[in-house]
Amino acid sequence: MQSARRMATTRPSYIRDILKATQGRQILSLAGGLPDAQLFPTGLLARAAHELAETPGVYQYGLTSGLPGLVDHIATQNNLASPDQLLITTGSQQGLDLISRAYLNPGDRILAEAPVYLGALQIFQLAEIDIGLIPATDTGPDIAQLEAELAKGGVKFFYAVPDFHNPTGVCWSLATRLAVAELLDRYKVMLIEDAPYRQLRYRGDELPLVSALMKGEHLLLQSFSKIATPGMRIGYVQGSAELLSPLVVVKQASDLHSSLPMQQMILSLLKAPEFPQHLSNLRHHYGLRVQVLAEALQHELGSALSFDVPQGGMFIWARLTEDEAPALAQRCLRNGLAVVPGQAFWPEGAPGYEAIRLNFSCLAPAQLKRAAQRLAASMSESSTD
Amino acid sequence: MQSARRMATTRPSYIRDILKATQGRQILSLAGGLPDAQLFPTGLLARAAHELAETPGVYQYGLTSGLPGLVDHIATQNNLASPDQLLITTGSQQGLDLISRAYLNPGDRILAEAPVYLGALQIFQLAEIDIGLIPATDTGPDIAQLEAELAKGGVKFFYAVPDFHNPTGVCWSLATRLAVAELLDRYKVMLIEDAPYRQLRYRGDELPLVSALMKGEHLLLQSFSKIATPGMRIGYVQGSAELLSPLVVVKQASDLHSSLPMQQMILSLLKAPEFPQHLSNLRHHYGLRVQVLAEALQHELGSALSFDVPQGGMFIWARLTEDEAPALAQRCLRNGLAVVPGQAFWPEGAPGYEAIRLNFSCLAPAQLKRAAQRLAASMSESSTD
Repeated sequence: MQSARRMATTRPSYIRDILKATQGRQILSLAGGLPDAQLFPTGLLARAAHELAETPGVYQYGLTSGLPGLVDHIATQNNLASPDQLLITTGSQQGLDLISRAYLNPGDRILAEAPVYLGALQIFQLAEIDIGLIPATDTGPDIAQLEAELAKGGVKFFYAVPDFHNPTGVCWSLATRLAVAELLDRYKVMLIEDAPYRQLRYRGDELPLVSALMKGEHLLLQSFSKIATPGMRIGYVQGSAELLSPLVVVKQASDLHSSLPMQQMILSLLKAPEFPQHLSNLRHHYGLRVQVLAEALQHELGSALSFDVPQGGMFIWARLTEDEAPALAQRCLRNGLAVVPGQAFWPEGAPGYEAIRLNFSCLAPAQLKRAAQRLAASMSESSTD
Repeated sequence: MQSARRMATTRPSYIRDILKATQGRQILSLAGGLPDAQLFPTGLLARAAHELAETPGVYQYGLTSGLPGLVDHIATQNNLASPDQLLITTGSQQGLDLISRAYLNPGDRILAEAPVYLGALQIFQLAEIDIGLIPATDTGPDIAQLEAELAKGGVKFFYAVPDFHNPTGVCWSLATRLAVAELLDRYKVMLIEDAPYRQLRYRGDELPLVSALMKGEHLLLQSFSKIATPGMRIGYVQGSAELLSPLVVVKQASDLHSSLPMQQMILSLLKAPEFPQHLSNLRHHYGLRVQVLAEALQHELGSALSFDVPQGGMFIWARLTEDEAPALAQRCLRNGLAVVPGQAFWPEGAPGYEAIRLNFSCLAPAQLKRAAQRLAASMSESSTD
């Protein structure tokens, strides 16, 4: 049968395709967005599973909004006035999909920082909407362009990743946060703040959530994929009960609720006295890795790459000064290295400059150094290609 | 912000609302569609959780199609030519939602047996489509009406629950199965066969899946909610790799994949040597309960109710000969009994006759008898209402 119209514009993930293509080969991958499984809190997970074995009450159908124990725990942790300000989701990816289905009609217009997180692009393509792109600067989105787009009117929301953006790694400055909050309030446009990397900061001081600076409508997406484990698929949306209410209806229709035993295990992890220690261990290792990769790139490649060292997150966004990203990515693959060409993060594949995204969270330091060598070797082949 | 157009036509579940309204009160509920938590395989679940504690490899991001071990196990069990014919979902509810998003445009027309499973109604309402209703008879959908609707053309698919339909409890006869398969093949219309209750048969012989009788396109929805536990939220869609392929793209965009530790625990359950024994225990108890409720209804109410005793599933569909269902449901609530008026299972609330749905899986036999007494008391109040 002919698939729905929305399928024509929805691309499968380039990254998932590349990972599938390289399975079984001796490939060093800087292409994924994976946390390092070696750093998962294995002991805490095993304890949580044993606790689950003693918790038979989490197997019946449950509330769409989430397991009450987990919802209450997060509400307390986040100082919320009411647990009604939370909706537990199957990863924050589902949170964004629910927002999109609850609020967007085909043809609607939203704004997003460009480059755009691939998973968000897929959701927006499914929704058959129009995406206005706001170019990223090294302190966040270009404020003048954001205002110009808002002034045109007809914008349903602004989708943003202010903390260690995927793919650029940018952390918005305080001035940008204040300016964006003021603009969105002034133009009465909702903010969708996606913050999966917020707790992965390796240097510098935490800055306020942009949504916390706003008076107007906002929803916050949070994930346990980067700080606990992604395979469990648990995240949440935080916002006013009124804004969440249509999301709850869509979630009820789409999967009733997220897995209760998984919510119970996440609750066990969050309550474990050792969890903060796990988090600082994660920050320690990832913080080391970003330095190792940055220094190796500098050492191997010098001015052929231009990048800022991110203060957190999982990615270095490297602009190419003398190469084209898709061709380079192909040469890298032949040399046993996977990287993502920047074009993947634009709806139309047209960034206006050449860049590659390099993930530093998943490989150990020695592998990161080897990866930089393979990248250098691949770039030096460019003239003979 | 104004929610999307699709939200205007999507009703939250009447049943979830009624259950929420009665929480904490001394209500006997025949309203839900819940399995009995007392009959969950608690020992097997605890063992699966302990096994999970020894299986650290299920916490990273995984394949959208599902945990390979589980997919392979089901493919073998179901004699499939390839594991590509399966997609693991967050309950079969998500399977239907993915089908709807992958194949339906707003304004499209589908056919469904009426009354319709509430969760399916919600999904179809979200999809902003047109639902052609085929009245249920006691052997399945009315074949003449199905043919008349198919002959009009423009039907995207026929959604059906041939084994122990929710809410009617009807199990399609073999003749109906053959006739429907032939009609759909002749008119080249896809079948969506939803079979969550298929393994809950208490009397009579198993009949072939309708999709197994077809030459043309079909997708089968299966769930572990009724035979294992619903809180884990694991089900699957089975069909040709070609038909599944757009579903995989939508699933990737909407939640990447379903929880891997949950898939691992389901695999442990399915592999446990005691699982078949658990299934026959379930059938034994539910088979007893449907008899107990049927006899109590007969004894307490006689000809005021008209119903067939279903051979499986979870529901008795009782037609009212001298009462109106919504008013009766209200009186029942005052008397400490929850039932669902049949109107909830029609898109427009217009069945053409009065009926109530009575769930028999969730209460113990003694409670079912008390429930029948409360129903009788509530019906006898009708003249004084």
